[in-house]
Amino acid sequence: MTEPAKIWGVGVGPGDPELLTLKAHRIITNADVIAYPAPSEGDSLARSIVADYLSGAQKEIVIRISMDPARFPPRDVYDQAVEEIGRHTASGQSVAILCEGDPFFYGSFMYMFEKLAQLGPVEVIPGVSSMMASAAALQTPLASRNDVICVIPATLETDDIQTRLDAADMAVFIKVGRHLAKIKAVLQKAGLLEFAHYIERATMMEEQRSPLSEIRSDTAPYFSMILVHRRGKAL
Amino acid sequence: MTEPAKIWGVGVGPGDPELLTLKAHRIITNADVIAYPAPSEGDSLARSIVADYLSGAQKEIVIRISMDPARFPPRDVYDQAVEEIGRHTASGQSVAILCEGDPFFYGSFMYMFEKLAQLGPVEVIPGVSSMMASAAALQTPLASRNDVICVIPATLETDDIQTRLDAADMAVFIKVGRHLAKIKAVLQKAGLLEFAHYIERATMMEEQRSPLSEIRSDTAPYFSMILVHRRGKAL
Repeated sequence: MTEPAKIWGVGVGPGDPELLTLKAHRIITNADVIAYPAPSEGDSLARSIVADYLSGAQKEIVIRISMDPARFPPRDVYDQAVEEIGRHTASGQSVAILCEGDPFFYGSFMYMFEKLAQLGPVEVIPGVSSMMASAAALQTPLASRNDVICVIPATLETDDIQTRLDAADMAVFIKVGRHLAKIKAVLQKAGLLEFAHYIERATMMEEQRSPLSEIRSDTAPYFSMILVHRRGKAL
Repeated sequence: MTEPAKIWGVGVGPGDPELLTLKAHRIITNADVIAYPAPSEGDSLARSIVADYLSGAQKEIVIRISMDPARFPPRDVYDQAVEEIGRHTASGQSVAILCEGDPFFYGSFMYMFEKLAQLGPVEVIPGVSSMMASAAALQTPLASRNDVICVIPATLETDDIQTRLDAADMAVFIKVGRHLAKIKAVLQKAGLLEFAHYIERATMMEEQRSPLSEIRSDTAPYFSMILVHRRGKAL
């Protein structure tokens, strides 16, 4: 126990266990307790990313979160997790909360952050985000010089997406999932479809990537992104 | 020499040497040659971030880049560096090119990338970007749910900045430097000044942060950012 009662929100990166930072690795392997989100049933992606680094001697808190959008965010689940974490920190045990990618880039960690901060100091350890990992895997620079990057959730309405796209030099669509056909239609109309890159599960074993125009399906996995630069490429 | 003749563009993160990824650490310590940008005179920030990990036995290529905007990007300097790197890879020596933050997030690495790719396979290792590091240091989540994040270079004209700001839920201003007064004026006009956070040199020893409204100076260091969420905070 190096720093008793401390809480960390730790970015574990986009999927490749080697894309953990040295700091995240140190904290996760030294914390008394690790906590992580998981679906209602099945394994936690965040835990699977760091699995090889765990000794098995740590206490683990599984935060089970329903993926049903109608029930998101499930505040009762987060509140209960904060309470459980609080019991550990009160007894002098440090807790590292694992976050996929970066904790503050659309991460569900933020739903616990304010209440955790009432328990004591919370340090946030930034991580490699899926956006940077996708650009690297696609060998596509995001932006040069005066370019504006817009990160646009594909969950927005078509009109809203068009407005935001107009303001972007590089548009990064996240949460593509069942909104794939909508994004393709918007990009087609804007004359940008030919420039768009599709990628799913960047840096994971199952990574897939291709020009968006070659994707025939109308839906995609949750961990998919579309990157498109107004000039075709940043450089 | 584990992978002869290979070239990597390696993100070394925002400044804290512990925010290097495990993969970046492995590649940088194993490469035959390391190359890095540096100003016309003085030390390289990218090299200083990894200095403690270097054995001193590696060949080093310093890419000296004038910070004069009128001479940027200096294509002759980049071409010369690519040529020198090519001489090493041709003789079987692997080369790791160090990039501050993430290589493809406004990094000057992109100016060499296409020509490097003609020499052989180039792998890009994503890094923790200053954007995520700044949000973590400010304890400010970037975006939740359907929020759009816009990364806006402060170098743009006032009208252009206003248009892009209108399209953002979270605006991240980069390259603030001598454009600080302009950004303050735009945010004041938009009624967002009170929500804006200022940070310079995130995760470095010299990190400074404060509400933007308390900054009296009209200029800032190059490595400074302003983060502002339209609702005051993402959550």
